[in-house]
Amino acid sequence: MKVAVVGASGYTGLELLRILLRHPAFELAAVTSEQRRGLPVGEAFPSLRGQLDLVLEAADPAALAGRVELAFTALPHVTSARVVAQLRAAGLRVVDLSADFRLRDPRVYRETYGEHGAPQLLSEAVYGLPELHREALRATRLAASAGCYPTGALLPLVPFLRAGLVEPSVCIDARSGVSGAGRKLEADYLFAELDENCFAYQVGGVHRHVPEIAQEAARAAGGPVAIGFVPHLLPTIRGIATTVFARPRKGLTSDAAREVLEEAWGRERFVRVLPAGETPRLSAVRGANFCDVAAFVDGPTGSLVLLSALDNLVKGAAGQAVQCANLMCDLPEESGLCEAALVP
Amino acid sequence: MKVAVVGASGYTGLELLRILLRHPAFELAAVTSEQRRGLPVGEAFPSLRGQLDLVLEAADPAALAGRVELAFTALPHVTSARVVAQLRAAGLRVVDLSADFRLRDPRVYRETYGEHGAPQLLSEAVYGLPELHREALRATRLAASAGCYPTGALLPLVPFLRAGLVEPSVCIDARSGVSGAGRKLEADYLFAELDENCFAYQVGGVHRHVPEIAQEAARAAGGPVAIGFVPHLLPTIRGIATTVFARPRKGLTSDAAREVLEEAWGRERFVRVLPAGETPRLSAVRGANFCDVAAFVDGPTGSLVLLSALDNLVKGAAGQAVQCANLMCDLPEESGLCEAALVP
Amino acid sequence: MKVAVVGASGYTGLELLRILLRHPAFELAAVTSEQRRGLPVGEAFPSLRGQLDLVLEAADPAALAGRVELAFTALPHVTSARVVAQLRAAGLRVVDLSADFRLRDPRVYRETYGEHGAPQLLSEAVYGLPELHREALRATRLAASAGCYPTGALLPLVPFLRAGLVEPSVCIDARSGVSGAGRKLEADYLFAELDENCFAYQVGGVHRHVPEIAQEAARAAGGPVAIGFVPHLLPTIRGIATTVFARPRKGLTSDAAREVLEEAWGRERFVRVLPAGETPRLSAVRGANFCDVAAFVDGPTGSLVLLSALDNLVKGAAGQAVQCANLMCDLPEESGLCEAALVP
Amino acid sequence: MKVAVVGASGYTGLELLRILLRHPAFELAAVTSEQRRGLPVGEAFPSLRGQLDLVLEAADPAALAGRVELAFTALPHVTSARVVAQLRAAGLRVVDLSADFRLRDPRVYRETYGEHGAPQLLSEAVYGLPELHREALRATRLAASAGCYPTGALLPLVPFLRAGLVEPSVCIDARSGVSGAGRKLEADYLFAELDENCFAYQVGGVHRHVPEIAQEAARAAGGPVAIGFVPHLLPTIRGIATTVFARPRKGLTSDAAREVLEEAWGRERFVRVLPAGETPRLSAVRGANFCDVAAFVDGPTGSLVLLSALDNLVKGAAGQAVQCANLMCDLPEESGLCEAALVP
Repeated sequence: MKVAVVGASGYTGLELLRILLRHPAFELAAVTSEQRRGLPVGEAFPSLRGQLDLVLEAADPAALAGRVELAFTALPHVTSARVVAQLRAAGLRVVDLSADFRLRDPRVYRETYGEHGAPQLLSEAVYGLPELHREALRATRLAASAGCYPTGALLPLVPFLRAGLVEPSVCIDARSGVSGAGRKLEADYLFAELDENCFAYQVGGVHRHVPEIAQEAARAAGGPVAIGFVPHLLPTIRGIATTVFARPRKGLTSDAAREVLEEAWGRERFVRVLPAGETPRLSAVRGANFCDVAAFVDGPTGSLVLLSALDNLVKGAAGQAVQCANLMCDLPEESGLCEAALVP
Repeated sequence: MKVAVVGASGYTGLELLRILLRHPAFELAAVTSEQRRGLPVGEAFPSLRGQLDLVLEAADPAALAGRVELAFTALPHVTSARVVAQLRAAGLRVVDLSADFRLRDPRVYRETYGEHGAPQLLSEAVYGLPELHREALRATRLAASAGCYPTGALLPLVPFLRAGLVEPSVCIDARSGVSGAGRKLEADYLFAELDENCFAYQVGGVHRHVPEIAQEAARAAGGPVAIGFVPHLLPTIRGIATTVFARPRKGLTSDAAREVLEEAWGRERFVRVLPAGETPRLSAVRGANFCDVAAFVDGPTGSLVLLSALDNLVKGAAGQAVQCANLMCDLPEESGLCEAALVP
Repeated sequence: MKVAVVGASGYTGLELLRILLRHPAFELAAVTSEQRRGLPVGEAFPSLRGQLDLVLEAADPAALAGRVELAFTALPHVTSARVVAQLRAAGLRVVDLSADFRLRDPRVYRETYGEHGAPQLLSEAVYGLPELHREALRATRLAASAGCYPTGALLPLVPFLRAGLVEPSVCIDARSGVSGAGRKLEADYLFAELDENCFAYQVGGVHRHVPEIAQEAARAAGGPVAIGFVPHLLPTIRGIATTVFARPRKGLTSDAAREVLEEAWGRERFVRVLPAGETPRLSAVRGANFCDVAAFVDGPTGSLVLLSALDNLVKGAAGQAVQCANLMCDLPEESGLCEAALVP
Repeated sequence: MKVAVVGASGYTGLELLRILLRHPAFELAAVTSEQRRGLPVGEAFPSLRGQLDLVLEAADPAALAGRVELAFTALPHVTSARVVAQLRAAGLRVVDLSADFRLRDPRVYRETYGEHGAPQLLSEAVYGLPELHREALRATRLAASAGCYPTGALLPLVPFLRAGLVEPSVCIDARSGVSGAGRKLEADYLFAELDENCFAYQVGGVHRHVPEIAQEAARAAGGPVAIGFVPHLLPTIRGIATTVFARPRKGLTSDAAREVLEEAWGRERFVRVLPAGETPRLSAVRGANFCDVAAFVDGPTGSLVLLSALDNLVKGAAGQAVQCANLMCDLPEESGLCEAALVP
């Protein structure tokens, strides 16, 4: 099946190319990039030299319509909604990696990002976290691939919310590698500023990923869940390491907490519940589509401590998008995603 | 005044040498190292080549007695208690950088580290966090320089506990550079394992620093405080970045929270309350004796979020020890500690 | 075809597992590790959890004989020769990743590593750099996969030696990421020592890779070539960046030099001659089986400057070994090796 | 003595502030920054918060004249020449950290940087490498602080050129941390691009530092010296590690080569000739004003291999400038420069 990547200039688009190059069923037939159109892919991206014989083109939904059946859109939010609407109108299936179709409530979208460019598609879109919405993804033609921070927070937390085991107010301390910010030229992202450094950002206000976490947490809990969120920048290229603090409704042991995760995710291909006592590490998921999770109960406070690790560009973006596309196209869910982590 | 560093093989000992080399009042007269005794300092430590004309010697308290007035002990816990007792018996003032004299209750010490080697000295020892116990430090001859994690947690938290503004149960998510683990040859500390990595450790059990934080938190609160603590290893050489989550007893704004810090620490030389909206960064304290702090109130949950950054080897160890020694010797508290951070 | 990895405890063995997991024709049927035998692979290597359903076993050549047709040996030199002899005696094809079968002259081996454990196999072994010895590799049952430093030096240099364009005395300045040293617990390889650091090692003596480079350079030049070699440790996990300085026999321009590389390697799948003006980067080969090369002529001195970049664990070890095995087994040379680099 | 830093926005200017803050004789009385004028220093530079009570001002040479006796200029080349001329006209002593007064021949300057803004001052300016031109620096009122790459290349090389021990054609392979490029927002300097990476740049053309190295090499050799130069970017914040390959005129041993360095620099405070067999490391000079040097003779080729390590912002820029200023002001040469390296 022929597919397109729309918006390959950023890190997420490049990661899509890397994964799709080895996909057994999807064939990359078109790659668009406004900034570099006209350039052969191998010239624009030195890592792909000699790997892919395509020329970067402008994003023209009509021109793509006849050539591909599915498009991955890796565009900035707001822009993405408009392009997705055109691609859907042209009959393509779409996996959107922006935030534009993740929030079901257009008012929440407006408060977070501004006016929505294609609100008519919101009811059609499925939140693209396959472990939560697998059946709906199989049936849809528009998936909104879940964000990196939300994936890291929701996968360990949702089983406890669904089972009503914790209070509906949690605090999340999350740490992301710098590729999560994209290929932006900002001083904070310079090597000389970020190496040997670590700092929180967007504290006290509301981080853009909070409404997304809150929406899915509420669906799991059957009612509102207050989400405290403190994101940090890590001196790593990739990876998100998340700590969630929750208060159990009644006594819980570390073993019982681990069992909750095991029951929820034990049969999942891409969520690994770690053996008792082990903690998730970015190194074990680098370049791979896994989210490793663990649960502990803190002795002195009795708090439930949930930990997760994932690669923000894979299970947090491009890998997740391909996992959604596999479901939408009735392919084995793990197609193209079986790569082991790059260790060391 | 002549001083000795007892135990210079580790990173903390080396950092003491770096700071004492530029100290205007203390003169380094003896440096001990069991592992490398007999070696000139400049040969053992390439960074000190041509800087210090001393030979590493064995730690012989009697031999030190006539030559120095004060000793900094940077030895492993348990070992340290024994050596400190000998140094005190020989009449020296001591600043101990191990954990041996930080816990006032010998039962808590025993549960955490084992049998105490010099319990008779516990009543004499003062907890070496000058911002909390300045007057007692001026009067003592034995300071137990505060630990790195506790310093990062206590400096932002204590003002809220003292004022009774938060519930006596807090969750701390802390991240440390690898030098906090010392110069140990363990696989987790190899560059190939730690670079591009981040992970929690000692979760679910009780980290050794918890009793120390709990002791000082209780003194501030006037009653027990439950401490949940999740330490992480960061891919940095130095630095501790701490997030403390606490629940305000009544409504609090970010501005009011910042004001609490400002009132408590506004006149301190080494605690910098950041301007509203800014977050502490490891880069701003690298190599320097500062602890930067900030306070925010999280909108969705109403939680108080406290952040701090310090250099674990300076304000978290050697710098703090020198600050204690300055007080004990009636020197200006900032002597030898005015160095700016190494930026970039 | 069923294959074994003999010696999976080190980084090279782990990388072999990563590559073989996705190989379309080789099936991993046995993995040995003395240190961790009895452990399931996924427990021993967290990155492979849920990826490979094998238990680590002891290396018993007889037991492997009936189960696999080809073995990759990733053992320390000297040990390897002995095990390889047993595997060959049992009828298996072998790709050896140690240095034991790279040097054709047993006297040179003895001076470099000591007594050879299986000198009778030296005549059978083929130096495993497919771009230099493709036809011989197709015909052999024992390949000595080329070393990482030699691959980085030889690929840009050999075309000039073959054409007699440079003097037979070259100086090589090479820089390797720390995984090239293996998973050794040495102080130099600790994160706190290596991050923000860079230094030369084994200078003035003769680095173990020099005889290997000299042997292949001599074969290319048709006579002895003096090899000056200065290896450095880089603060990276992976990658070797090499600079070769050579003196042209007669005037040469950068364009002409680039053309020499283009003619030699233009049709190779895994050697990429960069466009004029571009320089090789470790980032473009991270995790991939490419060696990127470039050639320049320095204005002031007229020296030929050759540059290359490769991933020491892929084109410098495990990828190269698989490339050799593909040739030995009459498979497409690129089988299992088409992965793009992990960027960013 | 009151001094000014003119141009504090860049990394070099910030490093000057860090060093001057602890200088026993120079008092920082003015700091200029076009970009951030009006801001208190501690607000513009978080690492200096609470350390320096000055407001950034515009660079007005006339206004500085009455307030300071000496100015350090850390401005871009071409701009710097103009400002330096005004400061000199106002009677100030000047240490210029740009390249504007390093090249004695205005034609070479023109080819490298364009038209010179103050050629009349060239005869007055002294090349600011104290180990080469100490007496001239004592006598001048305008020092052109030597560049980072030239310092790393010249300190090990000059003794051999002066003694006529090597051929007048050398190849230099040098590696710099990213702070050498300044605080520029370029994609190559982003953490996500540079971490785990290493690459050569400006190869084949002529790097701007080559004429500077060639000029001083020629002065040492008493005739022209061809300089081949291949600079690399390292994934470190600070540091330059240099390898110089030279051909001895007659046989030389590693011991004899080391002796040449020892004789030349054995009495220098800031050049450390390492013990036989040791190689310079960036870690041993991080944040300190040392240049560590070593010399080896390569067995196979007989080449002389010279190695050095320095901190590009200290001995390669701000520290060197202060060392020059100390000489110009008849202060002890090491004033303010005795800091040990930040290790680990």
